[in-house]
Amino acid sequence: MNHTDLSNSVIFPRGEKLPEIFSKNFNGQAYLRMLSASGDEWNCPIGNVTFEPGCRNNWHRHPGGQILLVTGGRGWYQEEGSAAQKLRPGNVIRIPANVKHWHGAAKDSWFVHLSIETNCQAGPAEWLEPVSTAEYAKLK
Amino acid sequence: MNHTDLSNSVIFPRGEKLPEIFSKNFNGQAYLRMLSASGDEWNCPIGNVTFEPGCRNNWHRHPGGQILLVTGGRGWYQEEGSAAQKLRPGNVIRIPANVKHWHGAAKDSWFVHLSIETNCQAGPAEWLEPVSTAEYAKLK
Repeated sequence: MNHTDLSNSVIFPRGEKLPEIFSKNFNGQAYLRMLSASGDEWNCPIGNVTFEPGCRNNWHRHPGGQILLVTGGRGWYQEEGSAAQKLRPGNVIRIPANVKHWHGAAKDSWFVHLSIETNCQAGPAEWLEPVSTAEYAKLK
Repeated sequence: MNHTDLSNSVIFPRGEKLPEIFSKNFNGQAYLRMLSASGDEWNCPIGNVTFEPGCRNNWHRHPGGQILLVTGGRGWYQEEGSAAQKLRPGNVIRIPANVKHWHGAAKDSWFVHLSIETNCQAGPAEWLEPVSTAEYAKLK
């Protein structure tokens, strides 16, 4: 088991606890620092997201897709209808538009990824139900 | 001076020597691994770029802008008409559309950044003249 303390994130700043607009869609504590904002001329929101051990987000969909670049720790990514896959630093996950999915930390590890929202003119994420506690508990 | 060997890049794969289409616009050796390609549904080309010590690119412009996320080593970023600024891991550079600039490694350090091309429907980069050898030599 890897208990490396990534409470200060990896390379990029950890930022603050998620604002309520996001935290209500997470189980556990995560931190966010936006590296490039929404709604400006770059049109490419980039966030550095740091998950405490056990923290994961609810099932959701992005109408324009999303790219995750894993920079630290161990975590999970799951698409609806597929097995969860383990994530490690260096992994790149390209989430197609409108595919239902979740991502987050392993039970016993901090986890850090960059999140890049693509084609964001398509609209904001659609947030859905939490990941089943029983299903998450089975992951190893 | 920092001579840390980043010849295997940082977190993400180093990839291969730049293809000719890019290397002709660089002075020195750099390596590229595309993490998300051009021309697909994500519409957001992301490259991991690893520069050998002393390597830099020519002056150029991106018609849709670009974002650099520095992950390793020490380097430089300069916009036309401004002094070059030092880059270190954790720095984020947001290059506005059509601003003439260059980036690359310090003379005595490997340098690694992620490159995210934004608004790429605006068209490809416009490559210009090399950075003056005398001006680069003065940087410290």
